[in-house]
Amino acid sequence: MSSTIADPAPDFGVRAKTLVERANQALEALLVDAPGEQRLCQAMHYSVFNGGKRLRPLLVYATGQTLGLPLDALDAPACAVELIHCYSLVHDDLPAMDDDDLRRGRPTTHLAFDEALAILAGDALQALAFECLARDPAQVAHPEISLAMIRELTSACGARGMAGGQALDLDMEGQSPEPASVERMFALKTGALIRASVMMAAAARPELPETEVQALRRFADSVGLAFQIRDDLLDIEGQTGVIGKTAGSDEAHDKASWPGRFGVEAARKRIDELSRVAASALSELSGDTSALLWLGRKMVNREY
Amino acid sequence: MSSTIADPAPDFGVRAKTLVERANQALEALLVDAPGEQRLCQAMHYSVFNGGKRLRPLLVYATGQTLGLPLDALDAPACAVELIHCYSLVHDDLPAMDDDDLRRGRPTTHLAFDEALAILAGDALQALAFECLARDPAQVAHPEISLAMIRELTSACGARGMAGGQALDLDMEGQSPEPASVERMFALKTGALIRASVMMAAAARPELPETEVQALRRFADSVGLAFQIRDDLLDIEGQTGVIGKTAGSDEAHDKASWPGRFGVEAARKRIDELSRVAASALSELSGDTSALLWLGRKMVNREY
Repeated sequence: MSSTIADPAPDFGVRAKTLVERANQALEALLVDAPGEQRLCQAMHYSVFNGGKRLRPLLVYATGQTLGLPLDALDAPACAVELIHCYSLVHDDLPAMDDDDLRRGRPTTHLAFDEALAILAGDALQALAFECLARDPAQVAHPEISLAMIRELTSACGARGMAGGQALDLDMEGQSPEPASVERMFALKTGALIRASVMMAAAARPELPETEVQALRRFADSVGLAFQIRDDLLDIEGQTGVIGKTAGSDEAHDKASWPGRFGVEAARKRIDELSRVAASALSELSGDTSALLWLGRKMVNREY
Repeated sequence: MSSTIADPAPDFGVRAKTLVERANQALEALLVDAPGEQRLCQAMHYSVFNGGKRLRPLLVYATGQTLGLPLDALDAPACAVELIHCYSLVHDDLPAMDDDDLRRGRPTTHLAFDEALAILAGDALQALAFECLARDPAQVAHPEISLAMIRELTSACGARGMAGGQALDLDMEGQSPEPASVERMFALKTGALIRASVMMAAAARPELPETEVQALRRFADSVGLAFQIRDDLLDIEGQTGVIGKTAGSDEAHDKASWPGRFGVEAARKRIDELSRVAASALSELSGDTSALLWLGRKMVNREY
C-alpha cells in the first residue's frame, strides 16, 4: 500500500465497478417503497442513493474474495454496513450536529426533505440494516452466522463504536486532545464500521484460524485510521468542488483534526506507517489478498 | 377486559412489581458506562431510567407466562423492546419532531443534555436493543430464536413499523383523516412495538400452533390500538401533573387524535369494542392467560 509495496494485480479494480452495481441493486431491492409511508421511503432512498462510493460494501466483497466466499453470502452484510453508514451521514449532517448543507454536492437529507423526516429516515435505515442481516436468504441454514454478523455491526455502531466516536468528536470540539485521543475517537467514529465490514465477511467463515481473524482486524483498523487521517488532509487541502462538501468545515467547527493538530507532514508520515501495518497484516493471510491490497491502497490514498 | 369479563386473578399484579424490577436490573446491566463516552452513556441512561412503567417488558413477561417460558428467556426481548421504546421517545421529543420539554415530569433528554447528544443517545439505544438480542445468553443454543426475535423487532421499528407510523403522524398534522387512516397510523406508531413485545415471546416457542400465534397477534393489535386511543383521551381529559407531559399537546400540534376527530364517546365505545376482541383472542389460547388479561386491562384503562 505504501510505495514500497509492489502494485497489486488490477483485477479487483475491474471487478469493483460490477460489485458497486451489485450492491446498489441489492440496496434498491431493500428500499422498495412501502405504500403509505411514501415520503419516509423517499427520504431513505435519497439518503442511500447519494453518489456514495460504496467503499464499505467493497470491503465486504474484497474480504470475501480473500476468504473464498460466494458473492451471495456477502450481499446482506454489504448492504447492512452501507445502510448504517448512510444513516450516520444523515444524522451527522443535522443542524444540531455538523449542520451541513451539502453532501457529495447535493442538499443534505434534512434540506431536501425536512429535519423530522431526516431523523426518522436515519432511524429507519438503522433498523433496515439489522433487518436485512436477520433476513439474509444466504444464511437460512446458518442462523449463527447471521447473528455473528449482527453482533459485529451492533457493537460497531453503538455507544462503544460509531455513536460513541461521534459523541467524543463533539466533546473534543475546541479542545486540544493528544494524538492518542484523536486516534481513539477516529477508531470509533470511522474505524468501527470499516472493521465491521471486514469482520462481517470473516463471520461467514467461522472456521477461520484466530491468527487470520486477528490479521484481518489489524488490516481493517490500520486502513480505517489512515482513511480518516486522509479525510482530514483532504478537508484542509481540498476544494469544495472536488470533495463534494464544504472544504475547511472541520476547522470551521473547531473539530479535532489530525493534521490540523499535528501538522500535514506528520499526518502523511502516519498514513504511510499505517499503510505498512495494513500491508504486513495482509501478508499473514493464506488467501488471495489482491482485492484487499487494491482497496486498502485506494482508501488510504483516497483515489476511489 | 371490558366490564363483561370476569376479573382475572390478581397474581400478575403482585408479580408485575418484581418483573419491572427485574427488567430494570437487566437494563441497568446493559447500560454500564463505557469509559470515555461517558456523556453519551449518561444520556442513554437518563433516557432509559425515566420513570417509565415498563409496559412492554411486562407484556413480554406476561406472554411468556401464558406460553410457559422461563424468565431468563424473556429478559433480552423485554430489554430490547424497552430500549427501542425509549430511543423513540428521545427522538420524538426533539425540537424538529414534537418539541416537548417534559417527559414524565422531567426535562426531555435534549434539554437535560443537548440536542446532538439526544440524537446520538437514541441512535445508540437502537443499536443496543439489537445487540442485546444478538448476545442473548439464554439463546446461545438457539440462534434461530434470537434471529426470529430480531426480525420481529426490526420490522416493528422500521419504515413499515414505528418510524413509518411517526412519519404518517407528521403527514397527518393539520389534515382530516378518516378513522381507518388514523387507526392505521396508530397501528404502526404504537401498535407495532406492542405487537413485537408479544410476538418476540412467541418466537421463543417456535412450536406454537399457528392458530395461537394468530390469537396472540390479534390480542396485541387490539390492545395496542385501544392503548393509543386511551392515550388520546388522556391528552384531552388529563392534567399536566397527572400524565407527566403537557396536556392538550396533541391539539396544540394539530395531531390526528382519535377522540379529537371522532368524539370522546365514540372513542370510549371503540376502546370497549377492542377490549372485547382482545379478551376473545385470549380465550383461544391454551395456556394460562391471567397475566395477559390483567395487563391488557391495565393498558386499555391506563390504570398502570
